[in-house]
Amino acid sequence: MALPKKIAIHEVGPREGMQIEKNPVATSEKIRLIDMLSECNFPEIEVTSFVSPKWVPQMADAEEVVAGITTRPGTLYTGIYLNSQGMVRALKTNKLAVHGKMSVTASEIFSKRNVNRTFEENFAEAQARIESARDLNVATTEIAVMTAFGCNFEGDIAPARVIGMIDRLLGMSRDEGLSIELVQLADTMGWANPHSIRHMVGQVQDKWPELKINLHLHDTRGMGLANALAAMEMGVDDFDSAVAGLGGCPYAGFKDAPGNIVTEDLVHLCQEIGVETGIDLERLVEVAHEAERIVGHPLPGKLLRGGALGTYRRRALDAKA
Amino acid sequence: MALPKKIAIHEVGPREGMQIEKNPVATSEKIRLIDMLSECNFPEIEVTSFVSPKWVPQMADAEEVVAGITTRPGTLYTGIYLNSQGMVRALKTNKLAVHGKMSVTASEIFSKRNVNRTFEENFAEAQARIESARDLNVATTEIAVMTAFGCNFEGDIAPARVIGMIDRLLGMSRDEGLSIELVQLADTMGWANPHSIRHMVGQVQDKWPELKINLHLHDTRGMGLANALAAMEMGVDDFDSAVAGLGGCPYAGFKDAPGNIVTEDLVHLCQEIGVETGIDLERLVEVAHEAERIVGHPLPGKLLRGGALGTYRRRALDAKA
Repeated sequence: MALPKKIAIHEVGPREGMQIEKNPVATSEKIRLIDMLSECNFPEIEVTSFVSPKWVPQMADAEEVVAGITTRPGTLYTGIYLNSQGMVRALKTNKLAVHGKMSVTASEIFSKRNVNRTFEENFAEAQARIESARDLNVATTEIAVMTAFGCNFEGDIAPARVIGMIDRLLGMSRDEGLSIELVQLADTMGWANPHSIRHMVGQVQDKWPELKINLHLHDTRGMGLANALAAMEMGVDDFDSAVAGLGGCPYAGFKDAPGNIVTEDLVHLCQEIGVETGIDLERLVEVAHEAERIVGHPLPGKLLRGGALGTYRRRALDAKA
Repeated sequence: MALPKKIAIHEVGPREGMQIEKNPVATSEKIRLIDMLSECNFPEIEVTSFVSPKWVPQMADAEEVVAGITTRPGTLYTGIYLNSQGMVRALKTNKLAVHGKMSVTASEIFSKRNVNRTFEENFAEAQARIESARDLNVATTEIAVMTAFGCNFEGDIAPARVIGMIDRLLGMSRDEGLSIELVQLADTMGWANPHSIRHMVGQVQDKWPELKINLHLHDTRGMGLANALAAMEMGVDDFDSAVAGLGGCPYAGFKDAPGNIVTEDLVHLCQEIGVETGIDLERLVEVAHEAERIVGHPLPGKLLRGGALGTYRRRALDAKA
């Protein structure tokens, strides 16, 4: 149980959150939210998606959002792109950190439903992504496995399948002379539990001790923070999360099912158990409240209602003085 | 990390939940909720409070509720009473399991605010409770420490203080010839974290290995399930929780701050990691939805939105067949 001294938290709320909101969020509000997040000192903020406005109209303002934000030194600003066109758009902003990522989906049923690709087509696409990135002079440094712990349509995913997929992606990258630094395991639909996290993380660490592991956890069934803690206790120090729990799970039976783990709840857990994040929690809680106002409905974050313990500790001290 | 094979979950939603609701819940709806919970096979359901209707008007129908419910074999039905009068009322129903409990509050500031008692007056009251229970032929078998991990008004609570209070209560009970079976540690305002849980539980287990520990956890800052897991990994097998997260934290800065950990989310976590609860999760999720309808506003439970993984596993199998 050696917790990392410090973890890196990648804020994905502006991208995952704004993508799912039914009511359009004004571009100026998106920019304001990202600028407020910038004040919290994140190592990375994922600000938008460069995807077809035909499929995701909420992201049609990707360029405008990036043009509007004030970047701060010390924070990487990133975007999502699912093909060469998207990467070109991201590069053209001249404001984003752009790198290549080979992403595959462990659940073939979900992959077919979501992007109409078979298991094999996933890998062909990953290969194409390496090549198109290279054509744009962008190095591919990350690999990712989506639905790595289970899928609402396929059920449990055997860890051996995920390990096999990582192995294959790493083989492809070696053939291309690439140096992969990070593997992301995404619990896209909230199937992980603390035991499956320990098991999967342990296997990846044993096989590839040199790889950094990023966990993209969802809190769909309430186990998100328990899963993050289990991972930290295995030494994982790289997480994605969304302020106030922006986002949601579009694949659950109910439209308001929780999605990403909540950034401020994770930061607070870390503070309480002595893991540094470098993030300004007090400011972040204010941003979480603002995120709720921006989307116009309650978000699943707990801390924004319960209040940070640091605040209560200070008040208690003041009252005694 | 030896998880218990089975844990006992005490459902406290009908009591903690109904007590805090601003809009009155009809007695018939309370009865219906308890009867639905009875179908889920809980070892215990806390159904109401026998407190002064002057202070808690929501509980003025305590006798009516108890008279109306259909008890089932295998489930203990209990109530809360804060004095001899309340215990007499509970005994008169002839339907409840009644036992004595010595309860003290670790935070003196909270104790003064909440029940207008100093630290010492807490113990005098506990002594009076033993005696009045004995006068009613009721054995005192439990002790409890409220705000055992921290308090919004006083700040962190030193574990040594809690250990000292348990020691003193056990001394009092020995002097009275009582046999205490269980100590409840209540995280009344959601201050615990997985480390403080392990530390406190470890100390109690070391000093009093014969005592059963019950944890009454609140999820005010989102660490509830991580705390429950940390406790189970220490061997704790007795928990309080509330269906759908009924209840809330009246002491937080925001009126909708989460209170008790969510019963169905805890049961689901247990199922996923192989700990038995004996509870019918599928029925319980239906009851959680009904609880939301009864109170007329969203409740913090996650599983009632995300859906139980067992349901998705079955659907996935059916789709393959």
